Amino acid sequence: MTTHPPALWRRALAEALGTCLLVAIVVGSGIAAQQLSPDDVGLQLLQNSTATVLGLTVLILIFGPISGAHFNPAVSLVDWILGRRAGGGLSVKELCTYIASQTAGAIGGSVLANTMFEVGTSISGKERATAGHLMAEVVATAGLILLIFSLAATKRSSLAAPAVGAYIGAAYWFTSSTSFANPAVTVGRIFSDTFAGIAPGSVPGFVLAQLIGAAVGLGLLAALFPRDARTGNDVVVPHAANNRG
Amino acid sequence: MTTHPPALWRRALAEALGTCLLVAIVVGSGIAAQQLSPDDVGLQLLQNSTATVLGLTVLILIFGPISGAHFNPAVSLVDWILGRRAGGGLSVKELCTYIASQTAGAIGGSVLANTMFEVGTSISGKERATAGHLMAEVVATAGLILLIFSLAATKRSSLAAPAVGAYIGAAYWFTSSTSFANPAVTVGRIFSDTFAGIAPGSVPGFVLAQLIGAAVGLGLLAALFPRDARTGNDVVVPHAANNRG
Amino acid sequence: MTTHPPALWRRALAEALGTCLLVAIVVGSGIAAQQLSPDDVGLQLLQNSTATVLGLTVLILIFGPISGAHFNPAVSLVDWILGRRAGGGLSVKELCTYIASQTAGAIGGSVLANTMFEVGTSISGKERATAGHLMAEVVATAGLILLIFSLAATKRSSLAAPAVGAYIGAAYWFTSSTSFANPAVTVGRIFSDTFAGIAPGSVPGFVLAQLIGAAVGLGLLAALFPRDARTGNDVVVPHAANNRG
Amino acid sequence: MTTHPPALWRRALAEALGTCLLVAIVVGSGIAAQQLSPDDVGLQLLQNSTATVLGLTVLILIFGPISGAHFNPAVSLVDWILGRRAGGGLSVKELCTYIASQTAGAIGGSVLANTMFEVGTSISGKERATAGHLMAEVVATAGLILLIFSLAATKRSSLAAPAVGAYIGAAYWFTSSTSFANPAVTVGRIFSDTFAGIAPGSVPGFVLAQLIGAAVGLGLLAALFPRDARTGNDVVVPHAANNRG
Repeated sequence: MTTHPPALWRRALAEALGTCLLVAIVVGSGIAAQQLSPDDVGLQLLQNSTATVLGLTVLILIFGPISGAHFNPAVSLVDWILGRRAGGGLSVKELCTYIASQTAGAIGGSVLANTMFEVGTSISGKERATAGHLMAEVVATAGLILLIFSLAATKRSSLAAPAVGAYIGAAYWFTSSTSFANPAVTVGRIFSDTFAGIAPGSVPGFVLAQLIGAAVGLGLLAALFPRDARTGNDVVVPHAANNRG
Repeated sequence: MTTHPPALWRRALAEALGTCLLVAIVVGSGIAAQQLSPDDVGLQLLQNSTATVLGLTVLILIFGPISGAHFNPAVSLVDWILGRRAGGGLSVKELCTYIASQTAGAIGGSVLANTMFEVGTSISGKERATAGHLMAEVVATAGLILLIFSLAATKRSSLAAPAVGAYIGAAYWFTSSTSFANPAVTVGRIFSDTFAGIAPGSVPGFVLAQLIGAAVGLGLLAALFPRDARTGNDVVVPHAANNRG
Repeated sequence: MTTHPPALWRRALAEALGTCLLVAIVVGSGIAAQQLSPDDVGLQLLQNSTATVLGLTVLILIFGPISGAHFNPAVSLVDWILGRRAGGGLSVKELCTYIASQTAGAIGGSVLANTMFEVGTSISGKERATAGHLMAEVVATAGLILLIFSLAATKRSSLAAPAVGAYIGAAYWFTSSTSFANPAVTVGRIFSDTFAGIAPGSVPGFVLAQLIGAAVGLGLLAALFPRDARTGNDVVVPHAANNRG
Repeated sequence: MTTHPPALWRRALAEALGTCLLVAIVVGSGIAAQQLSPDDVGLQLLQNSTATVLGLTVLILIFGPISGAHFNPAVSLVDWILGRRAGGGLSVKELCTYIASQTAGAIGGSVLANTMFEVGTSISGKERATAGHLMAEVVATAGLILLIFSLAATKRSSLAAPAVGAYIGAAYWFTSSTSFANPAVTVGRIFSDTFAGIAPGSVPGFVLAQLIGAAVGLGLLAALFPRDARTGNDVVVPHAANNRG
């Protein structure tokens, strides 16, 4: 049975909308937490992380069948790398479209959250790039890549929605950086000077650490799942292959 | 294999009872939270949202096979719209019965919660209709409609129970309005002057925003799932089609 | 394929051990919560309910294939009633064995929790029997019975473990009594004068309310699932029928 | 269809990496909790346990298909015992390799967490070995062994990831020791003088209690699942048998 992926504009819409809502969830729940629990930063982070676990899981369920629900340039990049080797995955044009859609969506997500909470969009002043945080971003992104593509390698991508949600929920806490692990979301979070914001000066370091983490994740994947990593379409995150043509 | 849906009175009972318990969960856990954690509104909302995630999931599991577990006039309305185009879904009579049952059940749910907590039923004085909150209701309802009907369009409605529970749990936090996203529940929550209440004057704005959100959700659904949106029974929330005749 | 249920002594052991661990979870996490978060009763209840959601789900997974994982005389009683009508379910002897095992296990669970936390076993002085709490017990037990047997009626008992866990987690919050909903657990909780304890004088009222709630649940079940309620083995909680002979 | 397990070095890598990340999650989220919620130890434990539930579930999903995702010498030991009787399971050489990998990984996990949070690696001074805590470790480990191998005995090991995560999340709260239940993790947690640390002097008692708990779990397993306990490969935690060869 041959199935065609949805049109690229439709997949781009899915990536943009999904990433927009993901950032709206992260930023919006951060604003709510800050306003409602002003006395305990840990309680704020618990509210923020709980909302993200639930919301990210749902977003992957909605948009997975259309675009693969990457919402993350690091994931799309690895998909492209694995696909090149095996003759599947995203093309360069698709990769660029995905990344542009994700980044635009992420910025829109901050604006959307700011608007709902009537806080005004402004550039975050929250410096985050310490040595520990950069190392944490490497670890967080490596784990994310290993999770997503190990599920694909073992044909369990139907578990990706709750598994990725749960992973990010844990990574909020066990990494010192609260686990951005996503270059587009990192850029989007510049545009809200609230709990989840990040100052522009911290972004290059975070993105670089995330790309290094993606490479580490790829290396671990190759070591742990050697045969599967050569079987092409099976190893990439399914785009448009989950439940429909 | 032809299956007949349950008798309409039985489906109406399911919608009334399910919406009653949903509002009892929202209002009751709000009262408990307010009484037990008086010093931190964010902690109250975390208790309230956690109870709702768990309870709503269970209610959809119980009542889904009978009535589709809409519990929400916006969902029933979209079901009717999609069904008209494709020759399936609810009839006008069924739609009216669903909405009346949901609204009556929702009011009963507030009374039930008030009675269990011995707080007395009275009209809420909590004004909620700000510009940010109305926009939040548009976003919350659009996302809910997109979630429910995208699962139906991709034949994954068996995931609706945990997915809708998780969605509402996230939306409590990432929308500034705490995500009512349901005209019947909004009306029901008038009748408790407690944590989860809403003043009557805020209700028209909320309901209007929810209907606009439902339209936005329908538009996104048509853009993202074009073919599926024309296949009739497959696109509507299954009523009486999940596990039994 | 004919399958024999496990020997009755083995099922009795499963009911005793499962109910013991259930009460140990409820009482033990209550003690931990009280010790670690002394300043906020709501936070204590959130810790208590979260531990119970997770633990109860796991206990049903472990013991379900052996005894059906009732852990609750109200559930066993309804199983017997439904089975009598249809020629299946528990016999009177099995019912009595189940109830005795559950009650003994529940008492042991309080003792186990007290021992682990080195607090000493004594009779609780916590009076709980108000009108609101008794009504809450009716509601909580009715919902529990409706949930368990509606899943059985629609052949979805494999969802019972997470669904019952989630239900109790919501009921902790939306009922004013924190939802005991279980005569054996109610008796067991007499034996710890800590967060989750109940004074002996409140027990008869609670148990009576729970039995009324079970009857209400049965009535709702008959109204909502009429055909299924006559199909014998399908309507009872599966004992020894889930995954093995 | 004959399937070969992955090479032993690959399984050892999976056990080392998985146990490393498990300890990094436990220790790292403990540090974050302590820093962010300094005023409430119960809230710290809730953050710590929530992160562990989510993270442990994900780790079992990732590494289960390679090594069985034991991450725990007590689990590997029981696997070897059950396998000896039935002619399957780990060999002595594999058992030793697993335990060494787990222990080395666990120590690395503390170092990783310390590094991300820039707290410096030092020996914990937190004495934990009271009579109540030791009894709690017996209970916690017995329950863990019973859970894992009862799922295997009833061919439901695909549920192990969320079930083990949920179990540990409950056991954090209902046992007074916060449930280490794992000799390798216990050793690893020596190397962080933070929330989740344990003083070296408490380790022998904890490990002994865990081994006694494993024996208790094995006894309960034999009583409850007698036939299954003799069917060889079916009773052991699947290593390399879940989803791939």
